[in-house]
This record gives sequence, structure tokens and C-alpha cells, in this order.
Amino acid sequence: MKKLIALYRKPDDVEAFLKHYNEVHLPLVARTPGLLRTVINRVTSAPMGGEPAYFMIAEMHFADQDSFDAAMKSPENRAAGKDLMGFARDIVTLLVADVD
Amino acid sequence: MKKLIALYRKPDDVEAFLKHYNEVHLPLVARTPGLLRTVINRVTSAPMGGEPAYFMIAEMHFADQDSFDAAMKSPENRAAGKDLMGFARDIVTLLVADVD
Repeated sequence: MKKLIALYRKPDDVEAFLKHYNEVHLPLVARTPGLLRTVINRVTSAPMGGEPAYFMIAEMHFADQDSFDAAMKSPENRAAGKDLMGFARDIVTLLVADVD
Repeated sequence: MKKLIALYRKPDDVEAFLKHYNEVHLPLVARTPGLLRTVINRVTSAPMGGEPAYFMIAEMHFADQDSFDAAMKSPENRAAGKDLMGFARDIVTLLVADVD
């Protein structure tokens, strides 16, 4: 399996962030062709102490490299990416990962 | 569901890290009571450019808050945590998250 992982640091305005995320961004993401599912991890604490480094981690799951590559090239993904850069550019870190 | 998430930055010696992780750390983690499963995300790229911020992300899944709390207090988890601090203290970030 292939995952696109978005690590979000805590936004200045949590309420406004979540409103845009849930009402605008997630519906755009959901249109991505080949997307198997989206998992939202809401961070609650940091066991090693201090403020958690991230506020939320979103995972977009794809079956394999081919469906991931096709998804990334799709207009739907470009629209979701453009939206992401508009509301979260300064707080998001994107990673691609393989899961056995 | 409750997850313990370990974000690992790239170790100086990847081969030695993976040997210890796979042969010593994962077997210790696997003994944790209540652990449903462990998911290893091997980071392959960073779509926004540059070196990926993390090398690997490990997820330990638990059914709920109670089983997570019991797991964290167990001697098996303390042993895994002690091992973690011995080989990865400088490169690991631990987070606890809720997943619907």
C-alpha cells in the first residue's frame, strides 16, 4: 500500500482551520481517483513531554504505486493540493510512504 | 481507536538502526498487552521538496482509551520504551492520537 501523509502543526485559529478542513478540503480530497480511504489522527498528547509537535495527521491510502501515481496526476488531486497550499501551506508537511 | 505514533528522523546509520529496530525493538513492542497491530510506514519522498522530515513512522493501534492506558502502564511497554530511549532517543518523536 502507498500512503500520502499530511502532518499538520497546530494552526493559530483551530476552529477556522477545522471548518475549512472538514467543509472544503476533505470533500476535495474525497474526489481523488483511486483513494481507498482517508484516516484522520487527532493528536491528544506527547508522551515524551511538551506540546505535541503536530496537531493532526491525515493519511490518504492508495492500493499501490500505479494508483498513487495516477491519483497525484489527476485534476482532482491538483485541486485539493491547491486548496491545501491556500489554507495550510505554513503548517503542513507532506510525506509519501510505503506500507507492507 | 487510540494510536501511539512514533516519528523517526533519518538515523546516521540506517542499517544498524533497522537491525536493532527489527530484531530487538519490534519483538519487545509486540509483547505489549492490548496491542491490536503495528503499522510501519517507510517514507519514500517529500512531495513539497527537499529531504523528507522523517525516515519512518510507526503506528501502534489500541482499541480504546482504557486498553491504551493499561498498555502504557504495563512492564512490557516500559521495557519497549527503555529500549527505544537507548537506540533512538535523539531521532524519535512520540505522539498519541485518536482515530474515529
